[in-house]
This record gives sequence, structure tokens and C-alpha cells, in this order.
Amino acid sequence: MARTGRRPGASGTRDAILASARRRFAEDGYRGATIRAIAGDAGVDPALVHHYFGTKQELFGTVLDLPASPGDLVDRLAAAEAHEVGRRVIETFLEVWDEPTRRERMKILLRTAMVDETAARMIRGFVVESLLAPVAARLGAGDAPLRATLVASQLVGFAFVRYLLELEPLASASHEQVVAAYAPTLQRYLTGPLDGAGSS
Amino acid sequence: MARTGRRPGASGTRDAILASARRRFAEDGYRGATIRAIAGDAGVDPALVHHYFGTKQELFGTVLDLPASPGDLVDRLAAAEAHEVGRRVIETFLEVWDEPTRRERMKILLRTAMVDETAARMIRGFVVESLLAPVAARLGAGDAPLRATLVASQLVGFAFVRYLLELEPLASASHEQVVAAYAPTLQRYLTGPLDGAGSS
Repeated sequence: MARTGRRPGASGTRDAILASARRRFAEDGYRGATIRAIAGDAGVDPALVHHYFGTKQELFGTVLDLPASPGDLVDRLAAAEAHEVGRRVIETFLEVWDEPTRRERMKILLRTAMVDETAARMIRGFVVESLLAPVAARLGAGDAPLRATLVASQLVGFAFVRYLLELEPLASASHEQVVAAYAPTLQRYLTGPLDGAGSS
Repeated sequence: MARTGRRPGASGTRDAILASARRRFAEDGYRGATIRAIAGDAGVDPALVHHYFGTKQELFGTVLDLPASPGDLVDRLAAAEAHEVGRRVIETFLEVWDEPTRRERMKILLRTAMVDETAARMIRGFVVESLLAPVAARLGAGDAPLRATLVASQLVGFAFVRYLLELEPLASASHEQVVAAYAPTLQRYLTGPLDGAGSS
């Protein structure tokens, strides 16, 4: 209760920046939130934000408690053999959701995004523009934005049915079953024909 | 304001049954809600519920304001050429969402299902058990329940990205683009190999 009079140290500054970042991302969306504004809210120099958290992508990754920074994820996915990228995407997605604490956080985020427009804006720009579209673009797809939204539509639906609705038998399906079911879908969305060839 | 003293006529009875049905489906879920309980709440004989609304499936279809009764939908989808059922499913889904008033109703239902466990139970049992699983079963798939949940995962994710998030370019994609993108996915989930054959 008593004020110690100590100035906030490194961890205090770090926490203040994180709190500002959470608020700015929620209020302004991923694109609208600037490092300058986040730094301003925390009362620090923008350079200090970069010093502690790296790029805006990396800061956002920290806010979401991602297992790897978005840039790393993009590199990792894009580094996969082109014909295996669908498998890598669903494996990475399962990995993100597997850790219990992170899963609870992701569930809250997904649930919030589904009813709250600001939360939706926050993850929308990030997931599609910073993660999925770069992956599709590096794979050389001309229509990367459409492909990115197709991938997003399958991943979010999968997460909803498996983790939020807990609808059986998908909720208890093994990683192997999940990967076998979704890898070919994601592979086609990222690199395959979208003009109806292969359909019917 | 003045009471007319008229006994409720057919439309009053019909409305009372519908109101009870909405409440029961929401509280007890699709499986838990019985025609007997719905009739009891409305103070009518169960036979009258059947008289006005047909089967429980059909009553639920009316509550949701579906464009066709679920039984009809199952028949229609199962009657498609086996290799065209994926296309029929996404075409039917687009049709359900196309009509503006119905779209608003579906958006509310979807949004509610995403945060509210009772609403989720209400549509979960219905969509998967009464609609998708029978279609998969009629197509002769041994693992119909898993296939039904895979289809549900793609349809709900598509609806979320296109109609709730309105994420571009998927939000403005033409019916033709949507069908070309999703028909092969749904086709494989319903009739194709799920053991990883065709992947990588």
C-alpha cells in the first residue's frame, strides 16, 4: 500500500508498454495502432518500444502470446516445401491452440472477435494481412488476398467447432485426423486452382 | 387496449406454439426440446403442433425461417449426383444467406451461438444431426458424423468471414467464385478420402 518512491524499473516500463499496446490494438485495430501512439500512451520514447518488443508485428505477437513471432511464422510457413504448406499451416495452428493457457486466451479472443467489432478489427488486419497474405504471396499466388481469406475461413471455422462448440467427433479427433482432413483443403486454398477446376 | 373477449383463433394458437418452440429450443437444445413440452407450454394438444408445423425438424425450420424444411433440404442434397453434392451444399448455403431479412436473422443466430451456450446447443444438434449427418449417411459414408462436422466447420467459418467480419475480398466474391472455391472442399469432406490420401 505504501508508496515506495522507487521509479518503475525495466519490468514496469515493459508492462506499461504492453498495457498501452493492448488498448491501442483493441481501439484502433492492428493497422490503426501506431508504435508512436502506443509509446505516447505509455509515456516512453518509441525507440524503447522497439527495444523491448521489436517490430509492431512482434509486439502484436507478444500481446496475443503467440508461440513465435508473426515474421518467424511467415518465414517458417513459406520455407516449407510448396506442396506441404497446407500441412504446415494446420500443424502450426494446432500447436498454437494446444498449450492450455494459450488456448483459453485464444478462445476469449475468438469469442470476443465474433461479437465485438473492435476486437474483430484487431485480429482481422493482423491475421490476414500480416500472416496469411504474405504466405500466399511468397508462394507466388497472384490472388493472395482471396486465398488468405479462404484459409482464414477454414481455420476460424475449425477453431469454432473444435474448441468453442466442442462438437464431436471433431472436438476429440486426433492431430493426425485433423491434419489429414484439413491439409489438402488449405493446400488448395494457398496454391491450387480456385476456378472450379477439380470441382464436380 | 380493450379486451375483445374473442378466443384466440388459429393464428393466435399458431403464434403461441411458435413462441413456446423458440423458448424450448433455446433452453433445452434441439434434441432436448420435445413436441410434448412445446405443446404443454402453449396449452395445446401435441397433435395440434404437428397439425400446424409438421415434424419437429419442420417446426425448427420454421423457427429459423429456413427457405425449405430440413427434410426437404436433406432430400434435395442427397438427390444431387453424388459427385455434385459439395456444389449443392454451398449453393444452398448461399441461397439461405442471400435473402436480406433472413441474413439478418442468421447473423444474429450465428453471433449468439458463438457466445451463448444454449443457442449453440440449439443449432448444433439441429445442423449436424438433422441436416449434415443424414446427407453424409445417405451418400454412404461410414464416418458420417466426422464428415458432418468438417462441413460445418467450413460453412460456419465462411459465414463468419463473409457476413460477420465482412473481410475482403471474400465478402464481395461472386457466387461463382465462392462455389468454385468451396465446392471441392465440401465434396471431399462428404465423399472423399479423409486419411490424408490426396494431401501433400
